[in-house]
Amino acid sequence: MNIITVSREFGSGGRELGKRLADELQIAYYDKEILATIASKLKLDEEYVEKKLNIGNLRTVPVTFGRTFSLVNQNLDFVKILVEQEKIIKEIAEKGEDFVIVGRNADYILNNYKPFNLFVYADMESKIDRCRRKGMEDNLQKAADLKKAILKVDKSRKKEREIVTDSVWGKKENYHLCINTTEISLKEITPSLANYIKTWRKN
Amino acid sequence: MNIITVSREFGSGGRELGKRLADELQIAYYDKEILATIASKLKLDEEYVEKKLNIGNLRTVPVTFGRTFSLVNQNLDFVKILVEQEKIIKEIAEKGEDFVIVGRNADYILNNYKPFNLFVYADMESKIDRCRRKGMEDNLQKAADLKKAILKVDKSRKKEREIVTDSVWGKKENYHLCINTTEISLKEITPSLANYIKTWRKN
Repeated sequence: MNIITVSREFGSGGRELGKRLADELQIAYYDKEILATIASKLKLDEEYVEKKLNIGNLRTVPVTFGRTFSLVNQNLDFVKILVEQEKIIKEIAEKGEDFVIVGRNADYILNNYKPFNLFVYADMESKIDRCRRKGMEDNLQKAADLKKAILKVDKSRKKEREIVTDSVWGKKENYHLCINTTEISLKEITPSLANYIKTWRKN
Repeated sequence: MNIITVSREFGSGGRELGKRLADELQIAYYDKEILATIASKLKLDEEYVEKKLNIGNLRTVPVTFGRTFSLVNQNLDFVKILVEQEKIIKEIAEKGEDFVIVGRNADYILNNYKPFNLFVYADMESKIDRCRRKGMEDNLQKAADLKKAILKVDKSRKKEREIVTDSVWGKKENYHLCINTTEISLKEITPSLANYIKTWRKN
């Protein structure tokens, strides 16, 4: 059983690379469909679930009454979402099929299945460019704004990992391969990357 | 012109991988011959040069007289060796041929030539195993001793880099690809890695 997990910096093209890898290897790909399942199971709005997972980290809230109450509720939602997400990811793995999964601390959650863990990163300029090409500049006109957004999402991913796991997000020791996508074509690089993973698997 | 620089943790198999890559791509490979050239130019013993580069980092020595004098001299040798090494590496690049070079901060020194910069790492157990297989246990019987030796060399590499460059040794952002060699066969992985680098280069 071959599982490939893709962790990535925001804007580095990790999601696209994950999708391309799945296509190249002709295996399943899991990403946003997990959101829909969580939303349906928890009877929450899918967009809300996505937002909680993207920037909705637990804050250390002093448990007081009144104004902070809804914040506490939202944090409870966040915990519930994380728990449900873990359950769903494990259910996917239990089906026994090969797949690629992007984000969601899947490398940690699926550790027993010996996944190939990829980390995708790039320099800031390249990440800003990528976000721009994806049309994110509609909302965030300036590079400075994009940079801020990128750093915010990554900070959130790092923090979420600290909550869920005992390992550090983005630390190369936690991955089998770390790819810098600065100035490369994800499309061109996919076949040799897929090949690398296949060879790695055989060992 | 294709230059591949290989930086590596001690015991991770980076040197072997560099040599295999050069063979696979049928290009030149530079490593220990650089030591011989330095030794000859500076009229120093080759083994002494190697030792200085492996564990002979600059220490902060209070400049006093008497007992510390020879230590100061050795530090001067270390600086001379680093300067000569940089000169030799640049001379190699100026020849215009493709090559692989292992260690020696070549990624930094050759930055203008747009090299592909690889970092090779592995978990400690795997590095100890590799050292043991290479017969290093003749000198260092226990795993604890090997671990100490591995950490010492890597600490020295990190410190040397800090002296020579303004970038951090082993930080993934400084490399195009970081490979975890834990539990993989370097021989098996070489062709797909070479292929990855060739595709990267085309972009």
